[in-house]
Amino acid sequence: MKRVFITGAAGFIGSSLVDRLLSKSIEVVGWDNFSTGQRRFLESALKHPNFTLIEGDNLDLPALTQAMKGCDFIFHLAANADVRFGTNHPRKDLEQNTIATFNILEAARTNKILSIAFSSTGSVYGEAKVIPTPEDAPFPIQTSLYGASKITGEGLISAYGEGFGMHCYIFRFVSILGERYTHGHIFDFYKQLLENPSQLKILGDGTQKKSYLYIQDCLDAMLHVTTSARTEQTPHTQIFNLGTPEYVEVNTSVATICKALNLTPQLIYSGGKRGWIGDNPFIFLDTKKVTSTGWTPRCDIKTGIIKTLTWLQKNPWVYDARSH
Amino acid sequence: MKRVFITGAAGFIGSSLVDRLLSKSIEVVGWDNFSTGQRRFLESALKHPNFTLIEGDNLDLPALTQAMKGCDFIFHLAANADVRFGTNHPRKDLEQNTIATFNILEAARTNKILSIAFSSTGSVYGEAKVIPTPEDAPFPIQTSLYGASKITGEGLISAYGEGFGMHCYIFRFVSILGERYTHGHIFDFYKQLLENPSQLKILGDGTQKKSYLYIQDCLDAMLHVTTSARTEQTPHTQIFNLGTPEYVEVNTSVATICKALNLTPQLIYSGGKRGWIGDNPFIFLDTKKVTSTGWTPRCDIKTGIIKTLTWLQKNPWVYDARSH
Repeated sequence: MKRVFITGAAGFIGSSLVDRLLSKSIEVVGWDNFSTGQRRFLESALKHPNFTLIEGDNLDLPALTQAMKGCDFIFHLAANADVRFGTNHPRKDLEQNTIATFNILEAARTNKILSIAFSSTGSVYGEAKVIPTPEDAPFPIQTSLYGASKITGEGLISAYGEGFGMHCYIFRFVSILGERYTHGHIFDFYKQLLENPSQLKILGDGTQKKSYLYIQDCLDAMLHVTTSARTEQTPHTQIFNLGTPEYVEVNTSVATICKALNLTPQLIYSGGKRGWIGDNPFIFLDTKKVTSTGWTPRCDIKTGIIKTLTWLQKNPWVYDARSH
Repeated sequence: MKRVFITGAAGFIGSSLVDRLLSKSIEVVGWDNFSTGQRRFLESALKHPNFTLIEGDNLDLPALTQAMKGCDFIFHLAANADVRFGTNHPRKDLEQNTIATFNILEAARTNKILSIAFSSTGSVYGEAKVIPTPEDAPFPIQTSLYGASKITGEGLISAYGEGFGMHCYIFRFVSILGERYTHGHIFDFYKQLLENPSQLKILGDGTQKKSYLYIQDCLDAMLHVTTSARTEQTPHTQIFNLGTPEYVEVNTSVATICKALNLTPQLIYSGGKRGWIGDNPFIFLDTKKVTSTGWTPRCDIKTGIIKTLTWLQKNPWVYDARSH
């Protein structure tokens, strides 16, 4: 890993990975279309001599192919991560997740880049029957367009791995928390409480159980696996769940946030087991496979929530940046 | 099921389904781009007052949406089924399988068609660890672009089912045999023996184990399930393996063909466990789920092979038709 190409480099996870790799003296080419990425996340990286930022879209295959030149490893993190509103714009998932991933693989093939890591999601398990859910859980039925687009990305990457001898790492994330978090329930709850501290609207009945992982733990895990678990034999694809060995109810998360802010808003539930169509009321991944490689998370969920909230309090600009 | 839309209507399975539905007095709209479909397969259907043929491509969403008008059920059978040469043209799988399926779903949504059946494949199990492989086998790793494109189709269809309240039937086929078979090992072997009866080249070492289903059994199964196993509750997607409770080695299949033709060619093996990159050396599906609905296959594999061979002998034109 000498010169790394990162898609979604201006995103939450992408920009954090950029900084981490630069701190390890690795050259980084960041690629982003800035549809949701934030230039401010790359402020520090842009001052670094080992960093190159190229603005472009994954649907532009010639530009993508050109941008990747000379790289030896790809972290493909760019995605339309709008899990909740998938049914409002199904073509967006198709283009920005499915066709995008295809183009990344074609560009990699042209450039003879043989290593790729991909950010997938625990949502690919649909409504899992085995909880905590291991990587080889029973073949799931997809329940969201987001999950469907990620299972597509996984399938394409695995097939390219087999067909063209690539080394592929697929990471199925729980929700990621921490500095630069700009998307998800803490973001939404804190926004509501900024606007009206006396009331908090919660999707579903608040008993949905979710798991979260702190961004720096997530980066540790990805780098640990991609630098230590390289395999020369088939299958060319290795799949790892990334998460913590715990989960929290949405209600617990709400209580943590309200206590940290010293607020006691009225809680208004939309009701129902699911927050939205395709929402999974219980996401909890079995992470024994990744911990058996020697990585363990250092931050628990509650600490992750507090760190995220603290960062949002110090960076109110993200609410304006994300509202366009 | 009053007016049925069939994609790939001029193909092997599609045209057979057209004839079957017409014989049951169901109106049929056949849709095909004739990239591999055969007009001769629709000769009889075209004389039937309940049949409408519309030539068009799944990538043309406006035409597709228009063509589907007034239908209440979709059999989405069109696909680039070129399993073996996937790595030669990865974009073809993306366009003709993935984007095509997306367009079918969007056209269905526009036309408020709430029922869809989809021809998937046992290849989605990759190299299955559980054999015979049930529908809820351990979450597989894809090994072929064809399998990846079919898992994508499954994912999209399931997500639409959940998101838009559609009733979805996914059939994971073994290889289908019988009249109008124009693609696969019997087709290839017979072609070779026509050209040179003294020699037969076999991909791999001949010990690959595969399962096959006779076309009329396949149609029986799909119609039995879609007319009897309709469910009103979630999940909106039902998945069924379709196959027979047996498998044969490629060598056995070769022996059956040679005996039927009264030939004793020299057998030349390319060697190796797999016939090609991404080939699965053992495909055998557990079909207990579909047989528990009351359907059972009537034709065994050997009979299916003989029927196929007999049809090819009577229809040598398919070799010219497929060679362009």
